[in-house]
Amino acid sequence: MERKIYLDNMDVDEALKLFLDRTGYKQEIEEIHVIQSLGRVTADAVFAIYSSPNFNASAMDGIAVRAKDTYEASEVNPVIFKKGQYKYVDTGDPISEPYDAVIMIEDVVEVGEGNLKIISPVFPWQNVRPIGEDIVANEMIIPSNHIIGPVDIGALLSGGITTIKVYKKPRVGIIPTGTEIVEPGEKLKIGDIIESNSRMLEGLVKEYGGEPLRYSIVADDYELLKAAIKNALMENDIVVINAGSSAGSEDYTSKLVEDMGELIVHGVATKPGKPVVLGFIENKPVIGVPGYPVSAWVVFEIFAKPLINRWAGRQIKQEKKVEAVLSKRLVSSLRNKEFVRVKLGKVNNNLIATPLSRGAGVTMSLVRADGILEVPQTCEGYEAGEKVNINLLKDLEDIQNTIVSIGSHDLIMDIIGNMIHRKNSAYNLSSSHVGSMAGLMALRRGEAHMAPIHLLDEETGTYNIEYIKKYLANMDIALIKGVKRIQGIMTKKNNPKSIKGIEDLARDDIRFVNRQKGAGTRILTDYLLKNAGIDTEKINGYQREMTTHMAVAAAVASGSADVGVGVYSAAKAMDLNFIPIGEEEYDFAIPTAFLDEIMIKLFIEVIMSKDFKDYLNQMGGYGIENTGHIIKCN
Amino acid sequence: MERKIYLDNMDVDEALKLFLDRTGYKQEIEEIHVIQSLGRVTADAVFAIYSSPNFNASAMDGIAVRAKDTYEASEVNPVIFKKGQYKYVDTGDPISEPYDAVIMIEDVVEVGEGNLKIISPVFPWQNVRPIGEDIVANEMIIPSNHIIGPVDIGALLSGGITTIKVYKKPRVGIIPTGTEIVEPGEKLKIGDIIESNSRMLEGLVKEYGGEPLRYSIVADDYELLKAAIKNALMENDIVVINAGSSAGSEDYTSKLVEDMGELIVHGVATKPGKPVVLGFIENKPVIGVPGYPVSAWVVFEIFAKPLINRWAGRQIKQEKKVEAVLSKRLVSSLRNKEFVRVKLGKVNNNLIATPLSRGAGVTMSLVRADGILEVPQTCEGYEAGEKVNINLLKDLEDIQNTIVSIGSHDLIMDIIGNMIHRKNSAYNLSSSHVGSMAGLMALRRGEAHMAPIHLLDEETGTYNIEYIKKYLANMDIALIKGVKRIQGIMTKKNNPKSIKGIEDLARDDIRFVNRQKGAGTRILTDYLLKNAGIDTEKINGYQREMTTHMAVAAAVASGSADVGVGVYSAAKAMDLNFIPIGEEEYDFAIPTAFLDEIMIKLFIEVIMSKDFKDYLNQMGGYGIENTGHIIKCN
Repeated sequence: MERKIYLDNMDVDEALKLFLDRTGYKQEIEEIHVIQSLGRVTADAVFAIYSSPNFNASAMDGIAVRAKDTYEASEVNPVIFKKGQYKYVDTGDPISEPYDAVIMIEDVVEVGEGNLKIISPVFPWQNVRPIGEDIVANEMIIPSNHIIGPVDIGALLSGGITTIKVYKKPRVGIIPTGTEIVEPGEKLKIGDIIESNSRMLEGLVKEYGGEPLRYSIVADDYELLKAAIKNALMENDIVVINAGSSAGSEDYTSKLVEDMGELIVHGVATKPGKPVVLGFIENKPVIGVPGYPVSAWVVFEIFAKPLINRWAGRQIKQEKKVEAVLSKRLVSSLRNKEFVRVKLGKVNNNLIATPLSRGAGVTMSLVRADGILEVPQTCEGYEAGEKVNINLLKDLEDIQNTIVSIGSHDLIMDIIGNMIHRKNSAYNLSSSHVGSMAGLMALRRGEAHMAPIHLLDEETGTYNIEYIKKYLANMDIALIKGVKRIQGIMTKKNNPKSIKGIEDLARDDIRFVNRQKGAGTRILTDYLLKNAGIDTEKINGYQREMTTHMAVAAAVASGSADVGVGVYSAAKAMDLNFIPIGEEEYDFAIPTAFLDEIMIKLFIEVIMSKDFKDYLNQMGGYGIENTGHIIKCN
Repeated sequence: MERKIYLDNMDVDEALKLFLDRTGYKQEIEEIHVIQSLGRVTADAVFAIYSSPNFNASAMDGIAVRAKDTYEASEVNPVIFKKGQYKYVDTGDPISEPYDAVIMIEDVVEVGEGNLKIISPVFPWQNVRPIGEDIVANEMIIPSNHIIGPVDIGALLSGGITTIKVYKKPRVGIIPTGTEIVEPGEKLKIGDIIESNSRMLEGLVKEYGGEPLRYSIVADDYELLKAAIKNALMENDIVVINAGSSAGSEDYTSKLVEDMGELIVHGVATKPGKPVVLGFIENKPVIGVPGYPVSAWVVFEIFAKPLINRWAGRQIKQEKKVEAVLSKRLVSSLRNKEFVRVKLGKVNNNLIATPLSRGAGVTMSLVRADGILEVPQTCEGYEAGEKVNINLLKDLEDIQNTIVSIGSHDLIMDIIGNMIHRKNSAYNLSSSHVGSMAGLMALRRGEAHMAPIHLLDEETGTYNIEYIKKYLANMDIALIKGVKRIQGIMTKKNNPKSIKGIEDLARDDIRFVNRQKGAGTRILTDYLLKNAGIDTEKINGYQREMTTHMAVAAAVASGSADVGVGVYSAAKAMDLNFIPIGEEEYDFAIPTAFLDEIMIKLFIEVIMSKDFKDYLNQMGGYGIENTGHIIKCN
């Protein structure tokens, strides 16, 4: 097959309009039991059959009387009701002729022989719920296109409604394709990719109001895919194919849509999400979703969400937006609209947005994201400190209850975050990994609550305090002592290239993988290389930078590098050989003013807890002598 | 049985603390498939088993090369790659020795015999997704106590997770009790009440994260109820009994809890919701929920929600609050904390809160509510115009897209609202029924977008315009012509008391039901009574006021009144006899500035539509000659 190399670059809004306008869907209606209607969408307004209450009812426990018999009653001149002149009633009992009012039981005194004394009058219909007080027959209870809630169910039943017309949920067939993808749980071979997108898409379909139907994996084969699509069209209102939507040699989706029906769009100006296919087969909408998970998510949010929402009778909601300050410069291409995942944090009453990884394959950027920054096609990006609008993915309340930590990476940050959330699920820890120095700079700009740092002062041989004194001289900063951790050289298990120390990094047969500039580990590495008199230009891979210990360890474990520097826990997790080169102090710099905040107290409580220390002892590679001690620096 | 007449009046927070502290629950954990985990709550943090990708993978369709072979390439000095020196790769294919970079297919030119020309260099690992780019083995994917979303499912599967530990949903048994309640769908006799609360509570339990189990109705009988509770305790973690929680002669719940276990609370200082029972039987929490629907809802929100949330591992969310201006005076008792349902509307950028019916039995006040105003026990109420905090029940966005109509009631308001929502489900019409004059006053105070009015000027014999000129002289107001409607005297079918006209209202054997002061219908009635020379004090029931046409019609239909004045549609809906006494003009007063708002345009579009006019013709009793015409008044 000839390769079509280039995709179109159609404007997103234009593509969406083309797609929705052409969609010849017919909303189907079904009648279901009210008691099973939670979360469904009404297809018609619903009018009450009965009034509620359906009779005049006592609003209290008490006695039913004729109001005019009570008019003379007063404390000095009580009225006696004889047996037969009144009737005991409970709340909800019918009130009918000759009675027209109720005296509450607390105001009634028994005086023997069934006679009762009352000392204050009631007016006609007092303490009586009139017929229709709640619902009047023929009154509208809920309108059409209304999502049915628990309270609605109560009102519908009270109004005599037992079945209700709702929109049928559109059925959405999801076909995972790809010769390289395997079902979750299978043993992975090199080149295998676990099929996970279809399960994410299933969840999204449910959230949009549709009914997903996921098929088994289909290999990249024109005929097999054609048969799968035909089958899915029979069983569904909408068909989704993931992936094969690009223009590679094994991307059949656009060709199939063209051959079997009508191709409307192939390629839109979004990043990620460009290689999308939109079309119709047998008049049913077909969406070809790209394979990268974030691309798949973006495409689904743009095209599948409004389609399914509308089909299900739901309102197409505007995203909730907030204004935030961008914490670092962001450059974006004029070729497309970009969807940048961001972490949000509220520090000193400013909402700060920090961009996460922009890779289309980085699912974790979506898992961690609090919001999406849409950079319009006509915009080249934003400067640090600029105000931007963010589409919220999480509740603002949760975001406000989040400790914003920006600085060096350590596995314990995830552990601490988990323990905080577990102790009080209202609070979270958001940890951005930019290295120690960048963490201090973030504190200086007021963008973080804390910076985890491990910065060696070469002159004094001490950690962290000198840096705070130098770089945050004008701020009140405390240092919460964290952990001592062992840094070392990581090599493959059994050390096949016999690396002994830092001096081996410059060997010709050694490929090194480095940490990014400003990272404490990088500073330590550079310090040791300088002491050993090694020219960094001689080191093969010195320019290859990773932003976490685990990424370095993974590179070594996979064989794409022979050696890297990092902490023991990372080496242990990836089953690597580890040669200690020093112990360093990983602490938390924090503006003194924040020490009184509940969530910071919770943080300190967690790191001083027995649970946390037990965990570290079990991990190994950490010293915990001073953990939680607070030192005022400036 | 002896009656215990008085309930305790325990402070709400104290009662909740007692109840939650005493709850000896044990969160149970179950392991389920990740693909079935949407919406469940993690019981532990989840760490990746595999890295994703699990190998170095091509990030593009292109050719795999050794980067150093490309360094010399430039436009003037292209490099030729011979067959064997490169390898075609698709996105996701593994990149391994000797290759360490990928050139994208667009940058490759075939020059024959399998040779390829390239004109720009790539650096090592360019266009290669390194192992662990997305997820690194052993990294935390999601923390504990996290609600699993679609994106999380994708990440979990990618990280090699197939099963996951989640909190078991607490099972909540719901026992509806009452000798007077009947299952929905049964034919109603006088005194019967449709059982609807348990179905509302079922829905709430689901929303809180629990698993409801609803039992059949149990009569008010000590032994039957005891057996039902015993059975429910075996099958559930929490038992809810509705109702019988008060202190009436048939209220057994508190007694049963006392006899079978431990009674903690009976009666709290809330309105509605006072008669609540909290206790423990076999160490399982038991909640006795009052019978009035709004009381049941309030009690469930206060006590069941935090209990179930916590049990399910979910965060106990703070209500979302907004500040709003109260549109009318609200007096509240110092005996309890009151939960007042309010409609919210945004008019002139002010959020306006209008209290709805405060009756504990008025489910529709919950159906219609946009928020809850909590009036603390120590507060006697608020003045009109005071700023108050409202707990939101709906999205602020939906509230902002709502036309706030305050004024006279007509059935067509529900119909118009429904048609607006149907045309564009982003918009709603909220209609408060306070009478024509109060509607004009609301416009004057800037609390409404429009006031539906039908105000007869006795001097000119015209409707509405003179009132606008007089009462809103300083505002730019337009009058959108609505409908002409026939007002008349409503009596029971076949007019058993032979009522002929307005002069019969003062007859001794006639019980009248009136509309509230300021209502157009009341003004018309008073005008006709004055003309007929009738003293209103002679009229039996003149003081009995209803706020809607349908309520008046229902009172007549039920026999609690013999006669009322209202519109034809109400009489028809309740199958009453109708004696026309005049035609009136029901129009919409609206500040001119609002005419340009999208939702007001939508309103005008709807009332001018054929659908709407067809509907009115079918209803009967309306004239539609000028509907939608706009008259500038001031």
